[in-house]
Amino acid sequence: MIGEVPNTQVGQEFSSRRLAHEAGIHRPLQAGICGTKQNGAESIVVSGGYKDDEDYGDVVVYTGHGGQDSSGNQVSDQSLDDAGNAALVTSHLEGLPVRVLRGAHRGSQYAPTEGYRYDGLFRVASYGSTLGIDGFLIWQFRMELYEGTPIPEAVQQDELPIEEPVPGDQDQAPTGNESPERVQATVQRIVRSSAVKRQVKTWHDNCCQICNFRIEVPGGSYSEGAHIQGLGSPHNGPDTTSNVLCLCPNCHVMLDAGAIVLSDDLVVIRAGLEVGPLRTHPQHDIDLNCVRQHRERWRQ
Amino acid sequence: MIGEVPNTQVGQEFSSRRLAHEAGIHRPLQAGICGTKQNGAESIVVSGGYKDDEDYGDVVVYTGHGGQDSSGNQVSDQSLDDAGNAALVTSHLEGLPVRVLRGAHRGSQYAPTEGYRYDGLFRVASYGSTLGIDGFLIWQFRMELYEGTPIPEAVQQDELPIEEPVPGDQDQAPTGNESPERVQATVQRIVRSSAVKRQVKTWHDNCCQICNFRIEVPGGSYSEGAHIQGLGSPHNGPDTTSNVLCLCPNCHVMLDAGAIVLSDDLVVIRAGLEVGPLRTHPQHDIDLNCVRQHRERWRQ
Repeated sequence: MIGEVPNTQVGQEFSSRRLAHEAGIHRPLQAGICGTKQNGAESIVVSGGYKDDEDYGDVVVYTGHGGQDSSGNQVSDQSLDDAGNAALVTSHLEGLPVRVLRGAHRGSQYAPTEGYRYDGLFRVASYGSTLGIDGFLIWQFRMELYEGTPIPEAVQQDELPIEEPVPGDQDQAPTGNESPERVQATVQRIVRSSAVKRQVKTWHDNCCQICNFRIEVPGGSYSEGAHIQGLGSPHNGPDTTSNVLCLCPNCHVMLDAGAIVLSDDLVVIRAGLEVGPLRTHPQHDIDLNCVRQHRERWRQ
Repeated sequence: MIGEVPNTQVGQEFSSRRLAHEAGIHRPLQAGICGTKQNGAESIVVSGGYKDDEDYGDVVVYTGHGGQDSSGNQVSDQSLDDAGNAALVTSHLEGLPVRVLRGAHRGSQYAPTEGYRYDGLFRVASYGSTLGIDGFLIWQFRMELYEGTPIPEAVQQDELPIEEPVPGDQDQAPTGNESPERVQATVQRIVRSSAVKRQVKTWHDNCCQICNFRIEVPGGSYSEGAHIQGLGSPHNGPDTTSNVLCLCPNCHVMLDAGAIVLSDDLVVIRAGLEVGPLRTHPQHDIDLNCVRQHRERWRQ
């Protein structure tokens, strides 16, 4: 389950990993990353297990998984072959939201003073590798809170020993929560859209249906799902696989801006010239009504 | 001035166009679009002048300028050569925010019941042409409110004749305004970032510095400003022209994900192979510290 979990809310507190597991916020009881390379990361736990982590409230620099010994020292390099790290790369490439559960620890003023707190959905804005504090290669993921989600109030943790939390303080809700409906709506839109697009991108293995280019990056490959007939007014296209193409970003920009249109026999027309057939896939029907509406939309 | 105007706020009301002009929200006294093809659109007025307009609160389908006679009937085709329409295309291509001023009219339940109201910043999410209600070609721009900005409360306008507004109703503030600081911060970020990127894109005339491709679309051309060393933690790159490249979206994705790095003598390295020199421009210095940091970030 990617995105918000029913019957939970941003700021909700859990006294243990098991309760967060039962609520469906973060399913594993030990692993910090829940997810797979195929589907992306559902959720992560930020609880101070990696000394290279940084926490700015609405931005978390999250260290990937692996390379630690049993006492938490980094003793070998991390790798994108690790399932959790690969899942975060997929979340970045696919633009999928990741639930963030913060656990009590002294390394962050945004951590709860005890237990765990669900702090909303973050995007994986970027990633990269570097030498960590202990001198081994680590992968880091820049997690950014979606606009409109409240940021937890900062607490000066050196004044609050975790062993003895200030009574009542752990009940403090995050600031705001002013517009939960809005956040919810945003997220549902992202997730619904992604399911349809990801099906199309899987059929085409991230290869552009117009120019056949596939962008290869460390940890995966990248393409975009592009609606032929735009969603929403004034276009009102359906959010179905037959209205979505798998495109490279360049062809996506040109399709959206009418620099590329398709004929009824699915020939690509660029700047008024036929440049070749759209590559198709046996399971991927294209809705000709959408093709016509898109072409008509650019009838200069 | 693109973006928020100092000393104004979302939901602020103006009894006349002149007062909105004096506040700097919308400078022209008659034209519905303020802006130029070169710089993009500063602001638009949504006041029912075009019967093809649609208003959904956080989305406005805005009809371009031109082709009307003196009584507001569409009597000829609209064109992207019109300065106002071309300005909105630039805002779309550059990702620039546009101020929206709503004026009282019966065509929208989100319009104020009298006078004008500043309703915040919108992005131009898409555009295209179609046959309007009167049978002539019109250009339409899908304007989307930035996340986090409050949407005005809908008013059933057929129950409220504009000639006789319900007393006090016009003083009603838009719902929310819960987090103006947040909105302000978002917008300032967008605008600051754009100035640096646009300078670089202007130097290179939207031609990709890596693959030399320029995306041509109706009304303009398109490229992206790409930071070499990422902004923010953990990268902490500067937001300066010497840390920005003018790239096509494909090369941008590959640079951000480390599939492309640069050598110290500015040779492009893709998948470990030198593929040719980065195209440069006499005024566009490249900061080699940024080039090195980016390359080190992908030291797998």
